[in-house]
Amino acid sequence: MVDMQITFLGTSAATPTSCRGLSSLAIVRGSEVLLFDAGEGMQLNFIRSKLGVNKKMKIFITHMHADHCLGLLGLLQTMSLQGRENKIDIYGEPKLVEFINENTRIINFGLSYDVNLHAIESEGLVVREKDYEVTCCSATHSTSAFSYCLTEGDRPGIFNILEAKRLGIPEGELYGRLQNGEDIIYKGKTILSSQIVGSRRLGRKVGISGDTRPSEKLRRFFMDCDVLVFESTYSHKLKRKAALNFHSTAKEAARLAARSRVRKLLLTHFSARYNNTFELVSEAKSIHKNVNAAEDLMVVPIPYRD
Amino acid sequence: MVDMQITFLGTSAATPTSCRGLSSLAIVRGSEVLLFDAGEGMQLNFIRSKLGVNKKMKIFITHMHADHCLGLLGLLQTMSLQGRENKIDIYGEPKLVEFINENTRIINFGLSYDVNLHAIESEGLVVREKDYEVTCCSATHSTSAFSYCLTEGDRPGIFNILEAKRLGIPEGELYGRLQNGEDIIYKGKTILSSQIVGSRRLGRKVGISGDTRPSEKLRRFFMDCDVLVFESTYSHKLKRKAALNFHSTAKEAARLAARSRVRKLLLTHFSARYNNTFELVSEAKSIHKNVNAAEDLMVVPIPYRD
Repeated sequence: MVDMQITFLGTSAATPTSCRGLSSLAIVRGSEVLLFDAGEGMQLNFIRSKLGVNKKMKIFITHMHADHCLGLLGLLQTMSLQGRENKIDIYGEPKLVEFINENTRIINFGLSYDVNLHAIESEGLVVREKDYEVTCCSATHSTSAFSYCLTEGDRPGIFNILEAKRLGIPEGELYGRLQNGEDIIYKGKTILSSQIVGSRRLGRKVGISGDTRPSEKLRRFFMDCDVLVFESTYSHKLKRKAALNFHSTAKEAARLAARSRVRKLLLTHFSARYNNTFELVSEAKSIHKNVNAAEDLMVVPIPYRD
Repeated sequence: MVDMQITFLGTSAATPTSCRGLSSLAIVRGSEVLLFDAGEGMQLNFIRSKLGVNKKMKIFITHMHADHCLGLLGLLQTMSLQGRENKIDIYGEPKLVEFINENTRIINFGLSYDVNLHAIESEGLVVREKDYEVTCCSATHSTSAFSYCLTEGDRPGIFNILEAKRLGIPEGELYGRLQNGEDIIYKGKTILSSQIVGSRRLGRKVGISGDTRPSEKLRRFFMDCDVLVFESTYSHKLKRKAALNFHSTAKEAARLAARSRVRKLLLTHFSARYNNTFELVSEAKSIHKNVNAAEDLMVVPIPYRD
């Protein structure tokens, strides 16, 4: 069991408003923070959210528009001023590496920790850890852009402790071997792991669209997400503007989420013209029943399916 | 008569807090906006202050630390998204030019208006307009840094309309010539400008310290300021830390202001450790009687002396 939740750090498109900062969200998974995008000023909500400045951390940038990457510099500096020691891994397109390197040189950052920059050259696997991986897929935007998925590995099945006790198996090492799928011989009798342990359970899958038009490619990429965070810059009344600017409407986000069999859709990246998100949520809900609109500092837990 | 006021857009040092953004202030003088520094996220208070996105505008950067210049990129972009058409002039040390040019190239800004970058190579005059000039002086900081002064030209003396009428001079062109210091002949009699118009009155002078230690050079530079905005990162209890980090204490700011015969001292750039500024204002007031602590969005009018 690893707790996982999303904290939204900025939910406005292009320009900040009084209640919405620029694009950024953190997935807190166990003791690790995975940050997706860092719009200007996101460090303030990062501090407010008490995400901690010295945790294991990876940062993924969807694309190099100012409202998605500018805040990275201030965040890196503030964490340094607050004494961060652990390295950070940052992933994005090759221009991101140039962006960090050039600004580090010009502004003379002097960080207290190592920053490892990883230029993503192609779609697919971005990084694999023991029990999850992050993959990317090309989005359809006015500049080169990626969408990301965090996908956990399967978890072991449920251990039937009553059955194990009924068979007289002592707690300890043998439990561990059975849990890990190994059949054992106990007092001369073969006990199959499958007698005690249920079938392996799916890990969770979280998708983050970044800025994009909906596409068949993304529909496949986000298939079966437990939670999908999808941009919804406009209502469907402005569908032509959405297409022109390479963004999505709330309805288009919902349609893709429904076709991808996504369990929960979280809309974000709202044009500053919307004082509230009623219209956007309403049109999305006409297509997908489990929809919510992200707010700055909102925390959404991501439970296991079983 | 030209109205002039300062609007503070960010008053925190190094790291933003819940109620203070990073360094930035606007001097609104008539229909022009002169911006001094642009810390990350200042665009939000710029929008809140309704300073307008299409006014005549100059931007001056004191130095290339991230908390004083990063917000420039987002501000430029937001003004473009909101349809700015008028050019902007930006002044700062040569690295500022590199900062804007490199980021414009990497992030691909595509602004709707012209940006003229001016690298300041030496102290003295930065820009002269018809009725004011901005000058700079080297500050004493951990990196190359400037302090700025905005100094207005003298205004004409007060026109004594009663005396003009008593002498029977008709309103119109002759009034204008007298106001401009010209002696006239009216109905065969010489009338001296000085009979009707008082002596010329001083314009206003506003100083902005940026990040700096106090110095004899700055004491002279800020001489006779009507308003001096001076950094006050620490209280005098932390005077060693202030010296080490090339910052000033509230007491040091007040001491310099008193010696410069400054009329009003506004403290700003407070370390995030201070929840309020009582201690800082109090120690400054023990030295200079007209002191206030800047707050985000605070507006301070700058009246003429006479």
